[in-house]
Amino acid sequence: MIERPKTPLLDRVNLPSDLKALSDRQLRQLADELRAETISAVSVTGGHLGAGLGVVELTVAIHAVFDTPRDKLIWDVGHQCYPHKILTGRRDRIRTLRQKDGLSGFTKRSESPYDPFGAAHSSTSISAALGFAMARELGAGDVGDAIAVIGDGSMSAGMAYEAMNNAGHLRKRLIVILNDNEMSIAPPVGAMSAYLSRLYAGAPFQELKAAAKGAVSLLPEPLQEGARRAKDMLKHLAVGGTLFEEMGFSYVGPIDGHDLDQLLPVLRTVKARADGPILIHALTKKGKGYAPAEAAADRGHATAQFNVLTGEQKKAPSNAPSYTKVFAQSLIREAELDDRIVAITAAMPDGTGLNLFAERFPRRCFDVGIAEQHGVTFSAGLAAAGMKPFCAMYSTFLQRGYDQVVHDVAIQRLPVRFAIDRAGLVGADGATHAGSFDIAFLANLPDFVIMAAADEAELVHMVATAAAIDDRPSAFRFPRGDGVGVEMPERGAPLEIGRGRILREGGQVALLSLGTRLSEVLIAAEALAQRGIRATVADARFAKPLDRDMILQLARNHEALITIEEGAIGGFGSHVAQLLAEAGLFDRGLRYRSMVLPDTFIDQASPADMYATAGMNAPQIEAKVLEALGIAVVGERRA
Amino acid sequence: MIERPKTPLLDRVNLPSDLKALSDRQLRQLADELRAETISAVSVTGGHLGAGLGVVELTVAIHAVFDTPRDKLIWDVGHQCYPHKILTGRRDRIRTLRQKDGLSGFTKRSESPYDPFGAAHSSTSISAALGFAMARELGAGDVGDAIAVIGDGSMSAGMAYEAMNNAGHLRKRLIVILNDNEMSIAPPVGAMSAYLSRLYAGAPFQELKAAAKGAVSLLPEPLQEGARRAKDMLKHLAVGGTLFEEMGFSYVGPIDGHDLDQLLPVLRTVKARADGPILIHALTKKGKGYAPAEAAADRGHATAQFNVLTGEQKKAPSNAPSYTKVFAQSLIREAELDDRIVAITAAMPDGTGLNLFAERFPRRCFDVGIAEQHGVTFSAGLAAAGMKPFCAMYSTFLQRGYDQVVHDVAIQRLPVRFAIDRAGLVGADGATHAGSFDIAFLANLPDFVIMAAADEAELVHMVATAAAIDDRPSAFRFPRGDGVGVEMPERGAPLEIGRGRILREGGQVALLSLGTRLSEVLIAAEALAQRGIRATVADARFAKPLDRDMILQLARNHEALITIEEGAIGGFGSHVAQLLAEAGLFDRGLRYRSMVLPDTFIDQASPADMYATAGMNAPQIEAKVLEALGIAVVGERRA
Repeated sequence: MIERPKTPLLDRVNLPSDLKALSDRQLRQLADELRAETISAVSVTGGHLGAGLGVVELTVAIHAVFDTPRDKLIWDVGHQCYPHKILTGRRDRIRTLRQKDGLSGFTKRSESPYDPFGAAHSSTSISAALGFAMARELGAGDVGDAIAVIGDGSMSAGMAYEAMNNAGHLRKRLIVILNDNEMSIAPPVGAMSAYLSRLYAGAPFQELKAAAKGAVSLLPEPLQEGARRAKDMLKHLAVGGTLFEEMGFSYVGPIDGHDLDQLLPVLRTVKARADGPILIHALTKKGKGYAPAEAAADRGHATAQFNVLTGEQKKAPSNAPSYTKVFAQSLIREAELDDRIVAITAAMPDGTGLNLFAERFPRRCFDVGIAEQHGVTFSAGLAAAGMKPFCAMYSTFLQRGYDQVVHDVAIQRLPVRFAIDRAGLVGADGATHAGSFDIAFLANLPDFVIMAAADEAELVHMVATAAAIDDRPSAFRFPRGDGVGVEMPERGAPLEIGRGRILREGGQVALLSLGTRLSEVLIAAEALAQRGIRATVADARFAKPLDRDMILQLARNHEALITIEEGAIGGFGSHVAQLLAEAGLFDRGLRYRSMVLPDTFIDQASPADMYATAGMNAPQIEAKVLEALGIAVVGERRA
Repeated sequence: MIERPKTPLLDRVNLPSDLKALSDRQLRQLADELRAETISAVSVTGGHLGAGLGVVELTVAIHAVFDTPRDKLIWDVGHQCYPHKILTGRRDRIRTLRQKDGLSGFTKRSESPYDPFGAAHSSTSISAALGFAMARELGAGDVGDAIAVIGDGSMSAGMAYEAMNNAGHLRKRLIVILNDNEMSIAPPVGAMSAYLSRLYAGAPFQELKAAAKGAVSLLPEPLQEGARRAKDMLKHLAVGGTLFEEMGFSYVGPIDGHDLDQLLPVLRTVKARADGPILIHALTKKGKGYAPAEAAADRGHATAQFNVLTGEQKKAPSNAPSYTKVFAQSLIREAELDDRIVAITAAMPDGTGLNLFAERFPRRCFDVGIAEQHGVTFSAGLAAAGMKPFCAMYSTFLQRGYDQVVHDVAIQRLPVRFAIDRAGLVGADGATHAGSFDIAFLANLPDFVIMAAADEAELVHMVATAAAIDDRPSAFRFPRGDGVGVEMPERGAPLEIGRGRILREGGQVALLSLGTRLSEVLIAAEALAQRGIRATVADARFAKPLDRDMILQLARNHEALITIEEGAIGGFGSHVAQLLAEAGLFDRGLRYRSMVLPDTFIDQASPADMYATAGMNAPQIEAKVLEALGIAVVGERRA
């Protein structure tokens, strides 16, 4: 057990109102203690470290100057909210971060009034803050200022632009703090990022222009303390930032986001004087103040539990490769044989494994930024031009490009291949990152081929299958985490489209699985055998097109048919039910059940716990079979 | 029958290659003839007139200068493509526009090689063009230049920004023509729109800056003709346009988009010299050259058939109000009683009826621009602040904000009310505008209340119901077009959540309808009665939560249960099937069928034709009942 850091000042702070009594000098000390406490907490829980360390001073300054929770502070994405949670009455639970029944790793409305708008996906904060601001203008109850803190990476998303476009038009008081650390999860890409770099590269040499522009009225009033540094600060305050000004915002910056002598007076002046939308451009450093994080390639973005002194992370050894890596390696193998294969990621090169693809084929890999809408249609354009695009996105983020999947890919029947990672439940990231809806929202699109890998070897084949499908859209989904350790094929072989496979012959009850719940289904079948119940186990492989012959045979030759998928209602099971209904299989009786994710958002926990909550583990599959067969089980625990 | 215009030059043009032989003077004449032919065609078919008239010269100039279809010309949205279709081998079918089996009202890949990427939803063109451009860079087959023509309204969408951000980063040759007519469907809103106005307001007074910037190399070479006007043109060529330049584009403009003496030399120079992304800013006038369109508030955006001489439109009289108007009037009535009610539209004030709301409550109505992502989260922010937002969007466009519905509204359980217009099949706009998927993609979100109005009186009550639901998200869907003419209530009365209604008691077969197919279901029930088959007819009203009691009673007390909804699989019927399966209703036999939209994209036609294609009319409902009951019908037409 590593000793907790000494935090005498922080120990006296329970809520942000306690900051009002502190001097600026004490606030500086408080920031140092807050940083130490954040490092200590994350060393125990693991989680998003670098982002929080980058905003320690910003967190202190905002809470010191503004009146939260009446003023609405909205952290974009929420990766960076741990110091905020410590200052807003949640310090006693900070070492439960991302654990079952613990604090969320993101901001969350149900957790605290200091989280007026939750997040986890990026680039929503300006829209939400504008909602609060306009509600205030219309006289809504207890709403003061609306403050969005958004990273430079999040600014690549169209949604942020849409919000600024709207805010610049409405012209009401709204505070946006651009937390510019030159990093999102990976280094950000795109013209906006380059633009921001130019802004601050030029800044130290720029003179303060005393032109009669809006932002001038926002210059700090005679400063209460830190006078020695005020002159430096003024040098950094460049009035300009044309792009933001053209969008209707006043622009202040860039300022040093780790220097409270700059942050405090600027925020105080903004609070006193702002009368329209204003953007404060603060330069920060992800991982700031913790050497191992600063030194890491990802600036300590996400970490396992670690040793505070050395920074060494404790990672559980695994005997199986991650699905992500299997996908990447399989795609590289296919791309070696077909130079039309290209890969697209929306700001997740590491998360999707495409960093490996980019190393091997730098010209054939495109990181479009946090821009799923564009990423999908860009892929469609590549496909229309004869390329073979693999658009790799997490299930939850593909939701951002849904209309583009419908309008640009499906209606045009373009052969874009969607590699859907993090399909199903995802563990510590919780409900906001669950990939629950992709089967449902894709499977009703005409002509789509939709696959789900039951294990990592299947994934290899599905990559090959997608590469071979050249006349229509396709998708294959696979979960977060490591494979199950099956033997791996030399190379993927294309599967027959719309054909499932039988893994175990029973005769009494048919278990029809789609995706990685298959291993639990096989365990359940074994347990059923112990009870004398003979279960057939099939892997559908395809949610679309369905293996009609196999499914109708299963239905005709078994008393009961049960589908299992790691997805919400409306997906595979619903398509099977439709097939069975149309074929008249329900007319004379079929014990049909469809196991899907429950109709709730499941909070973060270990994957095993989440599957238990979702009712997707072997004992629950077994129980479902018994229920369907009308076999009462007395005195047994069912889950 | 009105005489066709005289078009001697146009009569000699079959494909764009025929333009190469024409002099610039002849191209000017061709443009005049093309305008006359466009007006004549749309007077017969109805459709989008103003947008096409605004780009007649641009269409001629692009096809004269570039080598389509090798060069890929991508029209954003596609409203403006009629002149393009006339020039690209489709003139003989131009008077079939938007009719069944006729030309699409938008660009469409399956229709012509001159439509390399179809559209209908806005702001996709730059992404698609960038896909073609990068494919070309990677050596894809026969791809030349990629040219996106995008309107100023479409630039309010985040997707366009995402694409520019990516294009500015990739730095490959790509041509974007900004067709700036100060109008989308309604006048565009937002800071970008104001910025563009400033750009061209300042233009005539700007001197050409001869600074060593990228765009300078793009200035026209000594011109072949039109020398007299070249000087004027140069005055208009402002090198600058900082915002676009900051995004990595060279900027040329603004130029007069109706003056071929400007368009032709600029495009020729761009074709000869461009070596990175370039934006050409062309000013045009929607409805240009046809006085009735120019005079109309919407600049002739969409029109019925009309008299060419007078501009008078032929509109079919209707005895019932449109659903859109009923929604708007109902919302106004609710808003008169509750000042927390606000309304949000994404650039569709007229289409959603919110223009009426805005007249009555200007401060409480927000047009966010073509920005569904922002619009949804902005609504969520308003709800979090205690307002009662009604977010009014077409079903097909709500797909653009799906992740925001999941992440910002549903997970946070915020009481945003979605008013989903154009749900189901939409007629002449065809597959791209069909609202097929909303029930499926919303009904699997926990805690959502989802309603579908069976007629216009029901819609009134559902608006009142949504206004009353203050603890969770809700949605109500209604179709395009006019109501069925039922008696209207004085005021809406909130419905009991999750309760359906029985309209007709039968006993043999239960028809469970959701939405406006109810009238066809009642006709089918009558026809069944003629055959001696007693049908119960129920209106579910709610897709979520289901009326479990009613549905289980229907299932238990009838031989057959058939659901009908105007939506794709995965929605209402799938939820009913899940309920029935879990309750064991299939175990001993139930003739269950679920009528949903078929698994195809249905091309434009009259609504009646589309319903026939979809199998959703009374005879098909009747046939489905007979099939379910195992009654063979010999020698009868079923649909």
